[in-house]
Amino acid sequence: MQTRNTLANIRIVLIYTSHPGNIGSAARAMKTMGLSELYLVNPKSFPDKQAVAMSSNATDILDNAVVVETLQEAIADCQLVVGASARHERSLSWNIQNSRECGELLVDQAENNQVAIIFGRESSGLSNDELAQCQHLLYIPANPHYSSLNVASAVQIISYECRMAWLARQDNKKKLSKNRERENIATTREMEGYYKHLETVMIDSGFLDPKNPKHLMTRLRRIYGRIHLDRSELNILRGMLVAFQKHK
Amino acid sequence: MQTRNTLANIRIVLIYTSHPGNIGSAARAMKTMGLSELYLVNPKSFPDKQAVAMSSNATDILDNAVVVETLQEAIADCQLVVGASARHERSLSWNIQNSRECGELLVDQAENNQVAIIFGRESSGLSNDELAQCQHLLYIPANPHYSSLNVASAVQIISYECRMAWLARQDNKKKLSKNRERENIATTREMEGYYKHLETVMIDSGFLDPKNPKHLMTRLRRIYGRIHLDRSELNILRGMLVAFQKHK
Repeated sequence: MQTRNTLANIRIVLIYTSHPGNIGSAARAMKTMGLSELYLVNPKSFPDKQAVAMSSNATDILDNAVVVETLQEAIADCQLVVGASARHERSLSWNIQNSRECGELLVDQAENNQVAIIFGRESSGLSNDELAQCQHLLYIPANPHYSSLNVASAVQIISYECRMAWLARQDNKKKLSKNRERENIATTREMEGYYKHLETVMIDSGFLDPKNPKHLMTRLRRIYGRIHLDRSELNILRGMLVAFQKHK
Repeated sequence: MQTRNTLANIRIVLIYTSHPGNIGSAARAMKTMGLSELYLVNPKSFPDKQAVAMSSNATDILDNAVVVETLQEAIADCQLVVGASARHERSLSWNIQNSRECGELLVDQAENNQVAIIFGRESSGLSNDELAQCQHLLYIPANPHYSSLNVASAVQIISYECRMAWLARQDNKKKLSKNRERENIATTREMEGYYKHLETVMIDSGFLDPKNPKHLMTRLRRIYGRIHLDRSELNILRGMLVAFQKHK
């Protein structure tokens, strides 16, 4: 990964896009800011001439776009997954950051890792299930009385913030960020394996009642999702679970 | 002027816009960021149903838009006039700033003054005569190999930067600390109680050998130490440990 341009490691994922024109506008927005990797989860119509028309010659982004059936497929190889949310409230347990803070985080991580930013449906954004697959949430601090950003405009702003953060790093190459020193961050797939394992151990111990799970797994995902575990740390936590299982 | 909202003193001026849809998209972009004042110099077609369609209910901005014949009329009452330019070079004779620096400048001035940002034609930007009427130039640091921003996308980014600068001023005024937003973070004493509990459970399960502990506790402290658990989250983790203990 280290030989790739940092911005090339930032993936834009659009979920269930209804208007193909928005896919084209998003591709144009990405390219103006130097981003190139576009994933489309179950788009209503793609390829589509409307998308080409709105892309204004950013057709290379469309040609290379990867179409998948599920969000899981789009993020399986990613070390950091950020969901774009219209929700402004900073909840106690969510790792929610504004577009500027998040641009910096994404660029930090993208130097050595694959990262993804998820944008939801035009009408309703991301579902709770989709949000649960994100380690961070980002919000654009829009006008609370009219926060109706077009999805391509949201992509434009986030891509812009990524570029600005990247340019600031170029300007400041000597400044080492704390995150840059960390490599080998666990992928989404590895984290999902951990959650599954944890759930099994919790059910076996009686702590989690599968008939009445409440929000326990969601809360645990929020806790572990914001640590950015590296692989050796994840191995410790999984080893602990194995010991608990054997011990019973 | 001082009683008006600062953002209401920031005027967007579009010159000779060819596509009425761009006027609508620009109105929507402005409104999402809390800007409201739109001037149109000699638009090709306005009012126009395409503009309404693209405005997505930001029709109040369109209804209040002021149509004039010349740039002079659009900026006659302004104390600061900034031109948006695709030119990146910082010329010696021009006062040129990037979109972020310029957002701060505009908000600074707009607290007590009327300011304007001028966007040129879709095809060719601002003419030299028009640039000469600006006191500052701003550029968006786009991809040099593809800097083709749609005019409404450029309005979106500049409006966003104005809003971010305005919000930063509000924040500075309130002097809110970042940590105040999360409450009920576990204290050191509570975290120490957790580590002690975790250690006991690990020893009981055989995962941790107290005669040869290696750096296991140190590593776990590093993992949990960076989550900044709140009390309800800590209660979940402790409850889980209790369940594991009872289960044996």
